[in-house]
Amino acid sequence: MSVFSAQVPIHRVTAEGRKAGTDELAIEEPLEIQVEFAGAQGRERRSVSITMRTPGHDEELAVGFLLTEGIIRGPADLLEVRSLLSETSSDGASNVVRVSLRDGVTLDLPRMDRNFYTTSSCGVCGKASIQALRTKSAFPPVSELTTPYLPAALLNLLPGRLREAQEVFATTGGLHASALFDAEGDLVDLREDVGRHNALDKVIGRALLDDRLPLRKNLLLVSGRASFELVQKASMAGLPFLGAVGAPSSLAVELAREAGMTLVGWLRDGRFNVYTGVWRIT
Amino acid sequence: MSVFSAQVPIHRVTAEGRKAGTDELAIEEPLEIQVEFAGAQGRERRSVSITMRTPGHDEELAVGFLLTEGIIRGPADLLEVRSLLSETSSDGASNVVRVSLRDGVTLDLPRMDRNFYTTSSCGVCGKASIQALRTKSAFPPVSELTTPYLPAALLNLLPGRLREAQEVFATTGGLHASALFDAEGDLVDLREDVGRHNALDKVIGRALLDDRLPLRKNLLLVSGRASFELVQKASMAGLPFLGAVGAPSSLAVELAREAGMTLVGWLRDGRFNVYTGVWRIT
Repeated sequence: MSVFSAQVPIHRVTAEGRKAGTDELAIEEPLEIQVEFAGAQGRERRSVSITMRTPGHDEELAVGFLLTEGIIRGPADLLEVRSLLSETSSDGASNVVRVSLRDGVTLDLPRMDRNFYTTSSCGVCGKASIQALRTKSAFPPVSELTTPYLPAALLNLLPGRLREAQEVFATTGGLHASALFDAEGDLVDLREDVGRHNALDKVIGRALLDDRLPLRKNLLLVSGRASFELVQKASMAGLPFLGAVGAPSSLAVELAREAGMTLVGWLRDGRFNVYTGVWRIT
Repeated sequence: MSVFSAQVPIHRVTAEGRKAGTDELAIEEPLEIQVEFAGAQGRERRSVSITMRTPGHDEELAVGFLLTEGIIRGPADLLEVRSLLSETSSDGASNVVRVSLRDGVTLDLPRMDRNFYTTSSCGVCGKASIQALRTKSAFPPVSELTTPYLPAALLNLLPGRLREAQEVFATTGGLHASALFDAEGDLVDLREDVGRHNALDKVIGRALLDDRLPLRKNLLLVSGRASFELVQKASMAGLPFLGAVGAPSSLAVELAREAGMTLVGWLRDGRFNVYTGVWRIT
């Protein structure tokens, strides 16, 4: 049992009959992300998202979310990142992260309010067009000059390395993983969460706190499918490569092409499909 | 190629080398759900959600969403459900559904505004507690008297029937499915979507439009994992049983127990785990 999972009593029903036992479940709990900033009337506080996440690495999640949603641009914007004990939480778990921004950080308040609506994989506010959904990266676009070439043999190694490193999935089967690799295919970071976008925000948040952004030389692998939102978050962090063990969506491919990223799907069992940016693959 | 998928050019990279080809992708596009209702100054209109969904069955999705989020209670609340052509959509697809409510339907406006924040699998507004996240069903709670007993052998048949019926997954691999069965295990409805919550809202919306709610005698099977949100939506439709091919989360189990539902996970290969409501299984 880890901090990411909880043991519950269950009944296993098989051809041999019914047997009482226990099972490990991935923990899912709400987290509120607050931003404190210098407003017209002194310091102001705003709730920008409440997300259902697996507890742990909450500060990473908060700053990763703020970066990938275009609210902050880097560690220089941060004054303090703090987990607060929630009064409503029965188990004393921390369910609020407050991110204090330095004076002089200008916030796009309408965008922040809009972000309150988006929070996750599906909600978007405003016009129903891909342009309106796009967030604008603080980094220059991924270009041919600044990104690595990727040998197919290297990409084929990544799923095995992700699986080896997964701490919780083997136990609960209920978590999505995001893994960051360096250009040699060595694992840099792995995060797991009930929400796939949270796992990615945690990986990016860690990189932000370590001042490693933009992630020009890194490869990202996600354990499931590639949605519009995952491509968008990867693009916001400056990643040139996103690999998915599962299928991409139509909008994910469209955005990856626009962003100049290499998008690979069905990366498993020694083979993969290249949807965009095939020129990077050698 | 179907309305749910799009063909794109790709490169397949295998041990034999690289080969140009095509692939079918699940379509992902934003849909705005609007509610029109009798307000203090005559008819008013409000946007309650924008969700990333796979086009098709949009009216079902809209009314299913409104029911499972506690905004409407049944078909009697509906005046008209209409798909509107969006000006911003390049392909002429309809990206707005407007649901007009009858005069006299009282709306919980603060809840509706809160719903604008929730939209999807992760965002929730307000207090970070399970109580605050709960929506209140229009139907009496699931009780022992009104729900079927479920033979294990019957449950073991459902995953195969879901797979046989899936139209798109086999092609794109990118869609979640929600399947509704009757008490004999015969398929009533199947919907697929890039968002698992959308697939479920579509199934429930269809039932609402056919005046089949509450779904006291039905079984629901979802193709992936069982999150808090899926249990909540199933509970709002009066379903006594939710089966998932994958794992449930901790909060999903907690809510299913509270709601008196039978929650089964890892339903595949002739076996399953029972997390709550084992008394229904015979």
